[in-house]
Amino acid sequence: MLTAQAADFPRWYQDVLAKATLAETGPVRGTMVIRPYGYAIWERIQAEMDQRIKAAGAENVYFPLLIPESHLRREAEHVEGFSPELAVVTEAGGQRLEEPVVIRPTSETVFGEYMARWVQSYRDLPLRLNQWANVVRWELRPRLFLRTSEFLWQEGHTAHASSADAAAFARRIHADVYRAVLEEVLAIPVLAGLKTDAERFAGATATLTCEGMMRDGKALQLATSHELGQNFARAFDITYTDAHGSAELCWTTSWGSSTRMVGGLIMVHGDDAGLRLPPQVAPVQVVVVAVKDAPAVAEAVERLRRELVADGTRVRADDRTGVGLGRRLTDWELKGVPVRLEVGPRDLAEGVVSLVRRDRREREPVGLDGAAAAATEALGDVQRALYEDAAGLLARRTVDVDDVDAAIDVARDGFARLPWASCGAEGERRLNAAGVSIRCLTTDDGAVPDDVDAPDLVAIAGRAY
Amino acid sequence: MLTAQAADFPRWYQDVLAKATLAETGPVRGTMVIRPYGYAIWERIQAEMDQRIKAAGAENVYFPLLIPESHLRREAEHVEGFSPELAVVTEAGGQRLEEPVVIRPTSETVFGEYMARWVQSYRDLPLRLNQWANVVRWELRPRLFLRTSEFLWQEGHTAHASSADAAAFARRIHADVYRAVLEEVLAIPVLAGLKTDAERFAGATATLTCEGMMRDGKALQLATSHELGQNFARAFDITYTDAHGSAELCWTTSWGSSTRMVGGLIMVHGDDAGLRLPPQVAPVQVVVVAVKDAPAVAEAVERLRRELVADGTRVRADDRTGVGLGRRLTDWELKGVPVRLEVGPRDLAEGVVSLVRRDRREREPVGLDGAAAAATEALGDVQRALYEDAAGLLARRTVDVDDVDAAIDVARDGFARLPWASCGAEGERRLNAAGVSIRCLTTDDGAVPDDVDAPDLVAIAGRAY
Repeated sequence: MLTAQAADFPRWYQDVLAKATLAETGPVRGTMVIRPYGYAIWERIQAEMDQRIKAAGAENVYFPLLIPESHLRREAEHVEGFSPELAVVTEAGGQRLEEPVVIRPTSETVFGEYMARWVQSYRDLPLRLNQWANVVRWELRPRLFLRTSEFLWQEGHTAHASSADAAAFARRIHADVYRAVLEEVLAIPVLAGLKTDAERFAGATATLTCEGMMRDGKALQLATSHELGQNFARAFDITYTDAHGSAELCWTTSWGSSTRMVGGLIMVHGDDAGLRLPPQVAPVQVVVVAVKDAPAVAEAVERLRRELVADGTRVRADDRTGVGLGRRLTDWELKGVPVRLEVGPRDLAEGVVSLVRRDRREREPVGLDGAAAAATEALGDVQRALYEDAAGLLARRTVDVDDVDAAIDVARDGFARLPWASCGAEGERRLNAAGVSIRCLTTDDGAVPDDVDAPDLVAIAGRAY
Repeated sequence: MLTAQAADFPRWYQDVLAKATLAETGPVRGTMVIRPYGYAIWERIQAEMDQRIKAAGAENVYFPLLIPESHLRREAEHVEGFSPELAVVTEAGGQRLEEPVVIRPTSETVFGEYMARWVQSYRDLPLRLNQWANVVRWELRPRLFLRTSEFLWQEGHTAHASSADAAAFARRIHADVYRAVLEEVLAIPVLAGLKTDAERFAGATATLTCEGMMRDGKALQLATSHELGQNFARAFDITYTDAHGSAELCWTTSWGSSTRMVGGLIMVHGDDAGLRLPPQVAPVQVVVVAVKDAPAVAEAVERLRRELVADGTRVRADDRTGVGLGRRLTDWELKGVPVRLEVGPRDLAEGVVSLVRRDRREREPVGLDGAAAAATEALGDVQRALYEDAAGLLARRTVDVDDVDAAIDVARDGFARLPWASCGAEGERRLNAAGVSIRCLTTDDGAVPDDVDAPDLVAIAGRAY
């Protein structure tokens, strides 16, 4: 069915996307069609993220898709980075446009322009805005969910009266939104730290990142949060009048996460049988399978379905007894449904059904009366077990090393932890030349450092998607 | 403050958008920036709609923004309609594209292409898909929310094995999703009926519409649902193998609604003091205003805020006592917050606060202890009263007439009901020549007809946005 992960991990990934009906390529090169099963996962991630973004005090806003080319040039550093990725509209409404417009690669410049208008006095601060939207960055080597010419994301932009307030907010988003959703909802253990000067977002004074380890030992950057100092405010003239009447520049932040997280979710948890979805994001949490076509079976399936619905569980009844059982079970495993209840006439005669956890793939008999409750309880177990599996892999494949050569060696199939003091910018260049990058800097005990110059920092090096 | 509705309704509309901070024009002509207060309204409409769409059995999907120009040409009738509205990307990734791509004016053609792949057997039917996305249709005469070059919307597309199943689904979306959300959530009384042959969507065999009357007596089309017969399936080769193994063409539907509904909401309920928001979509349902800066006031405001939060009410405390009270109250009226509790030191000394319903603008004393409960109860009253106000206007401004000339006269500031048999296609052309259109055909008692040829239909004629 699927290519084995050990044989060809990227091919396994493509196979899972197709066979679990998550996504396909779109008609324009580099674009993606997200099918209902994949989109339902994204919707759940988005809902969990959105709720926490709002709890942090940000409000959603919507800026236009199209930006005049001249506006993008306003921030030189900005356009430099995006120029080769832009899609340009030159004709519209049946006519050639006087000034070409670009499809947003981000809405950053438009946020800047309007935030400058909306912030007048210190009473308008902090201004905390977020946008859910599609952006386009032309990709020559697209990979579904990981790197596509169009992707869905949220970008937040905030303005504050002080450096400390801005820094605290960027860190709050990083910890209470990104890291919380990744760890608690997606069951992805996260390396949280600062980007080095070389890896930092252009214009940022600090970039906080959440990095995950995929099952092939490679890193995926899952979300970033930036402190922009007064750089962005200076470029867009975002100023406010303070309580004493004098004009001051704001301190700003920006932060983003995207459909790339769906790719991470697949590559952190999936196995050779397909997806393994954490119950919190699984579109179907429990599937109740009728093994055979029999009145008692149909009755029990319907009873379990009702009990689980009443419990608030996302449940699907599979009564397609015209289709071979083996094929149906393989399909539910492929789709990563966390818990399966199999209802067969023989078991039923003894008052039991089979409970199968997708993560362990072991069959366990449970009494019909307690089956719905057992399935619900198993969901919590699966959520924890998937996190622990991923954390175990991360721990096993992360090795302490002393120098750059050893780090390059370790990074073939995992992460190297090396003292930042003994590596430095020069060591980072050597790593990069070998196809390895520093994913983040952390303190020795894995916390996010105050800044990149703090003493005794550890560099986490790995190969990245 | 605001232009009076009676003086200049379109100007009043623009004033409200700006002063209630709902939306502004974007940097590219015809585009719109939806500010947090406006976007929060849209998010609530979207959530209510999405929940009902899912309850009807449709799943969300995401198709790419960009479509090859050649794909659009596949359906001749389709491209004909959109050609003058298309935005065309001719450069991307720093290079001229070999084949230009257009920004989707709808995703219709892409739905068609992929649905043809996904539907194989009768077991795949019905296939019910929906998409929330932005689309671009170049507008020369844009009006915020009503007609913008980019807008946000949902479009649903479904494929069925029979004509009856397709028709039933299009009607279900029309009644249980669109009409239900408009009437029950947005408090907008809806004229529901069929479009005439002349007004029907290209390629549809029947178009069901929800039409609202704005406070200037003009009509706004708020959502439509189409039966497409086998036309769409034929154009995209959407076929299935039936239970006997023979290949059959599907029967399809499509249906859409957009950010235009926000414009309708404003124009149906707003008055000369600003917005009047139905509690079900109001971002802030109750505002608790501290009249003066005093410890007892602050304490009571905080207590009411907590009680209302505990009640599940969306509440805001206004303790900006440094800003003049009059200015603050005007601002909350402008923003259309349904219920206001004013907490002043003198009232408080007598154990009371003032409750003001936005729809009636009358001040009523309520005991502090029961104030939160009174506010919550008032929310239900406001929701009903706004619907009744709008229904009253619609009834008063809808006049039965016998002929086309009378209809043209009535349509100056309302709707005319005229017998479709005495009007016909010829009468419709005369109406159109006078700037009047038939918004829909209904049965004599206001129900949706089975088809446009049913006997004794009534044509509702009016001027439209």
